[in-house]
Amino acid sequence: MTAPAARPVPRTDADPAWLPPEAFRALGSRRVLVCGTGDLTDTVHGEVDAACAEFGGTAVRAAVADHRPYDRPYDLVLRLDGTADGTAGGAEHRADDEAFTLVRERGRTTVSGAGGRGLLHGLFHVVRLGEAAFGADRPPVTHRPALATRMLNHWDNVAVHPVMGQVERGYAGGSLFWRDGRARGDLDRVRAYGRLLAACGINAVCVNNVNVHTTEAHLLTDRIGEVAALADALRPYGIRAHLSVTFAAPLVLGGLGTADPLDASVRAWWAAATARVYAAIPDFGGYVVKADSEGQPGPFAYGRSHADGANLLADALAPHGGTVYWRAFVYNHRQDWRDRTTDRARAAYDHFVPLDGAFRDNAVLQVKHGPVDFQPREPVSPVIGALPRTRIAVEVQATQEYTGQQRHVCALAPMWSEVLGFRPGAGASPTVGELARGGLVAVSNAGDDPYWTGHPLAQANLYAAGRLGARPGADPHAVLDEWIELTFTPDTCPDPERLRAGLRAVLRGSWRTYEKYTAPLGVGFMVQPGHHYGPSADGYEYSPWGTYHFADRDGVGVDRSRATGTGYAGQYAEPWATLYESPATCPDELLLFFHHVPYGHVLHSGTTVVQHIYDTHFEGVAEAAAARDIWTSLAGLMDGARHARVAERYEEQLRGAREWRDHINSYFFRKSGVPDARGRPIH
Amino acid sequence: MTAPAARPVPRTDADPAWLPPEAFRALGSRRVLVCGTGDLTDTVHGEVDAACAEFGGTAVRAAVADHRPYDRPYDLVLRLDGTADGTAGGAEHRADDEAFTLVRERGRTTVSGAGGRGLLHGLFHVVRLGEAAFGADRPPVTHRPALATRMLNHWDNVAVHPVMGQVERGYAGGSLFWRDGRARGDLDRVRAYGRLLAACGINAVCVNNVNVHTTEAHLLTDRIGEVAALADALRPYGIRAHLSVTFAAPLVLGGLGTADPLDASVRAWWAAATARVYAAIPDFGGYVVKADSEGQPGPFAYGRSHADGANLLADALAPHGGTVYWRAFVYNHRQDWRDRTTDRARAAYDHFVPLDGAFRDNAVLQVKHGPVDFQPREPVSPVIGALPRTRIAVEVQATQEYTGQQRHVCALAPMWSEVLGFRPGAGASPTVGELARGGLVAVSNAGDDPYWTGHPLAQANLYAAGRLGARPGADPHAVLDEWIELTFTPDTCPDPERLRAGLRAVLRGSWRTYEKYTAPLGVGFMVQPGHHYGPSADGYEYSPWGTYHFADRDGVGVDRSRATGTGYAGQYAEPWATLYESPATCPDELLLFFHHVPYGHVLHSGTTVVQHIYDTHFEGVAEAAAARDIWTSLAGLMDGARHARVAERYEEQLRGAREWRDHINSYFFRKSGVPDARGRPIH
Repeated sequence: MTAPAARPVPRTDADPAWLPPEAFRALGSRRVLVCGTGDLTDTVHGEVDAACAEFGGTAVRAAVADHRPYDRPYDLVLRLDGTADGTAGGAEHRADDEAFTLVRERGRTTVSGAGGRGLLHGLFHVVRLGEAAFGADRPPVTHRPALATRMLNHWDNVAVHPVMGQVERGYAGGSLFWRDGRARGDLDRVRAYGRLLAACGINAVCVNNVNVHTTEAHLLTDRIGEVAALADALRPYGIRAHLSVTFAAPLVLGGLGTADPLDASVRAWWAAATARVYAAIPDFGGYVVKADSEGQPGPFAYGRSHADGANLLADALAPHGGTVYWRAFVYNHRQDWRDRTTDRARAAYDHFVPLDGAFRDNAVLQVKHGPVDFQPREPVSPVIGALPRTRIAVEVQATQEYTGQQRHVCALAPMWSEVLGFRPGAGASPTVGELARGGLVAVSNAGDDPYWTGHPLAQANLYAAGRLGARPGADPHAVLDEWIELTFTPDTCPDPERLRAGLRAVLRGSWRTYEKYTAPLGVGFMVQPGHHYGPSADGYEYSPWGTYHFADRDGVGVDRSRATGTGYAGQYAEPWATLYESPATCPDELLLFFHHVPYGHVLHSGTTVVQHIYDTHFEGVAEAAAARDIWTSLAGLMDGARHARVAERYEEQLRGAREWRDHINSYFFRKSGVPDARGRPIH
Repeated sequence: MTAPAARPVPRTDADPAWLPPEAFRALGSRRVLVCGTGDLTDTVHGEVDAACAEFGGTAVRAAVADHRPYDRPYDLVLRLDGTADGTAGGAEHRADDEAFTLVRERGRTTVSGAGGRGLLHGLFHVVRLGEAAFGADRPPVTHRPALATRMLNHWDNVAVHPVMGQVERGYAGGSLFWRDGRARGDLDRVRAYGRLLAACGINAVCVNNVNVHTTEAHLLTDRIGEVAALADALRPYGIRAHLSVTFAAPLVLGGLGTADPLDASVRAWWAAATARVYAAIPDFGGYVVKADSEGQPGPFAYGRSHADGANLLADALAPHGGTVYWRAFVYNHRQDWRDRTTDRARAAYDHFVPLDGAFRDNAVLQVKHGPVDFQPREPVSPVIGALPRTRIAVEVQATQEYTGQQRHVCALAPMWSEVLGFRPGAGASPTVGELARGGLVAVSNAGDDPYWTGHPLAQANLYAAGRLGARPGADPHAVLDEWIELTFTPDTCPDPERLRAGLRAVLRGSWRTYEKYTAPLGVGFMVQPGHHYGPSADGYEYSPWGTYHFADRDGVGVDRSRATGTGYAGQYAEPWATLYESPATCPDELLLFFHHVPYGHVLHSGTTVVQHIYDTHFEGVAEAAAARDIWTSLAGLMDGARHARVAERYEEQLRGAREWRDHINSYFFRKSGVPDARGRPIH
């Protein structure tokens, strides 16, 4: 038996993000024993080796657990307890494999992983703790991700789409995986990406856009080898590959005359195609499907339900332990704006709640966190909590399509945390985080940009997506603090507390600031059509997209009450249905999402709707300017290039915030005729 | 001496447009003598040969004019009187070369051309007359194009532009000249195009987009051969090629460090480059230049005036008889919408009027007919008439960027005719058509579509551009009638009068109909940003493009008066300055272009502004529906494929007209709160 080998840490020229060498100082300056065999243990061994080489510690590897630990001079033992390393065998995620226990006693810290993934998580937990991992004794605590799946959906196209480009809604350069129709082949960068993801808790990646165009369809069949190469690159850090597929695959790839989910030849085609996928990728995670949505094909064409559609793929995946993630984003995107009875917000509930109980166990219904489309403020989707017999995954958008497109700072952890902590039922009923048995899915904001995310501070959103998936109840500010500590290692700079305070100041409130200077009071979608950057109050008002605000000279907002509106409020369980039903009880921040009110309507805050619009828009710009000034003051406390990149983006954010302020304020002033009570300039 | 040869008529599979075989019946069934030598006489000979072959006439060619005509049995003599055929030698257009005299006496019609072009025009005049050319005696009448230059500007890109495509603002398929970075090489189609243009009076074509991108810049130098091939194909029908060039050519092509028009090396570079152009194309017409406009480079970068810029190129062209067409479309396209003192409409006048007298004789200032950008209704540009010592060309837009994009019927001859008949000065001062000493330029609406123009009825705009250039004072309805007779040859159908009446009904009022259902009362630009198709009332309201309407809850329109507005009205001479200055005298159709008025303002028509908006929008849709019905009734009276193509487009027009109606009406209802006096549905 040969001694187990350390796997080299992947190298890249890109920004180290939250894994700079300095983050490994505490661990790397210790005497560390790594025990166990298997791929992921080799990875842990490689991490420890690299850290010790950097900071003077020593790394020892043993194939089996050392049962006489206290006889040996180790400060840290990383020990695989389980028999399986976790990368071979069945594909289904098992949270147990991902658990680890940490204890510190008699001067030694011991991390025991239930499986290889658990050991890896334990390693990164020690990294996060830093010196604190080697201080006072710690009683044994077992850590286990709350959600078994923490997935990134990459809206990456293989071929450059004529409108959407290489990455749909991508604001971080090109794709990490694809370029101009081909696999990029830069697998070192992919490995480094997998490492970053593992360190924040992501364990699944879907490698192509949910809008599956012609070229991309072939990834399922003749181009599966390219997916397998990505899966191979991601596997050493415990990340499983998933694939977006087109529901029309039997037609466009299989040459069949139908894609009817109840047709035997279709079922046989999917079974055979899926078997070939598993032959190439034994731990393949499964399929992600956008069907009957914004032009994508689906079961409706055959008069079948979405349960029929999802189960078709679930049955094909089941023998191999795979899962289908079936998106609930189904609505009429050819709506007539004149028709006020149709309400896009209702659509997912109306389509899917009747299907509760009809989905296979390995079918997950992937639901956007809000009922419309990743606006800066939406209520939590009433679908979550309304299908008790269906596994639900909650989808959030790390890529900042509607939240500043990585030109504005908008740390989303506080928003996601609100969603995950929401209780769709009464009293102490489960939170969204507890109901998301199918996992947390984030649309990735990463690309081939040197900083991974275009805006260096947008890394915090990628980081938070993983961490909140593992611990939905975590304090979002604590998650941001973790990211700050790892990424900026403040203790290495001349003024650690000023750097910490500055970073917290520009991140923590950034979502609220963005909300203030954009569409007001939950009304949403006042963005420029197409690219969705910058304001256009009426941009979607007379469109077929179902995203209206109905502003007129008297008032604004969408009546979604049961009594007089679209009835959407009635899709909620109590107490929410009643709370949202009336403007008197509806929270201010969602007022215009649920109600059409006069401009003079007085909010709970005591100001009128129109004055609130003016006030928040002036405040939002002032806050953005203050954040920019704080950022300026942090020069010298961090890497100069990173500081400069952010500084440059702050200028654009401030320009954009002013544009939003003046556009929205002028729009409502021209509509309402109400002057600003404080006499500030409105055009 | 060999006998002169007939030039074969170019063949194409495309629609014959206004030159179907049937249009040649009268001429082709006669005994015809063609006298003269030279390229264009060969062309005339070929036309006569083909017509006679089709309809049983006889064609005879003689090298010199027959001085004993009455001894011979000819019904028609087409005779070159001038010594020059007109395709060799100097490049400058000479209207005299284009004159012809037609007389009919003693049973014979004689057309004598002063030059080859004149003879060609005379031929097509006989075609237009049809049987009437061979009826009663006609005293001698000399016809001469009123404007020496009737040019088409093709906004065709050589390489497909990522946003604008192969043809910028093209609605007729691809380019006739270019495809995917290369010359198409389908010169038969180009020859057929030249033939159509000659038959309507066009004598100049600029073969590439005024926005000169990287690839296109090289047409001036290393790719001049491709332009020469087009020039060769167009020359037999008397069309001269022109080229759009970038002002930065000395930098991007010549490797110089500057493009300063006063720099000696720059002047030498242009002189040499232009000499090489003429070596390749001896009758090259000249350059078209968009400088310091929407991002194109220009003399401002060097602190030089546009006269300096234009004269630089004029001097390079002068030794060869060429002309520079310098566009006056210069304005700030990065305007701050908050700034109401800047007025894009003023820009061309402000920039160019101070330069009057500074331009070379062979520099033409090419001015859009209105002050903004080809809206369905604009006042006539005050630049025309304000530079008495400058040659002005008037630019119109045959391609229907803002007038329905060749999906809607919008016959533009009546609009152009209004412009050309406008008298910028008082009393019997010259008309625009008389002032346009530099010619009439139309942005082409033709492409590689089988019907040339996408919408078959849009052919009428291409036709009218030529005919109104030759005769600016012509009755536009008569021009449309000509087009109808030639194109549909009604006498060959079962019910000629019903076909004529139907075609007149759908064409003559189509511009007014389009105006009714789109932006009201001259306010313009309520189009969707970017592609400019379909309504978006606020689409450009908060943009940098200088195209605003300032609608609020009380009123709408732009105050361009001298007294209280931008002062634009004061750019006009009297009586217009005074007339436009006051809402009391401003014509209704331009009211919102010149004034911001309350919705309750009563028009000269007796209705309020807002009720006028409602009324015209309902009327416009009703008129479009009526036109569609008339069109339906014409089935069986024409080629079925052509009827079907138009019928299909009418459905889109009607859908689009309804969208415009409902969007605009709802927008103003929501702003004004004023209900429709007739209670029709507004959303």
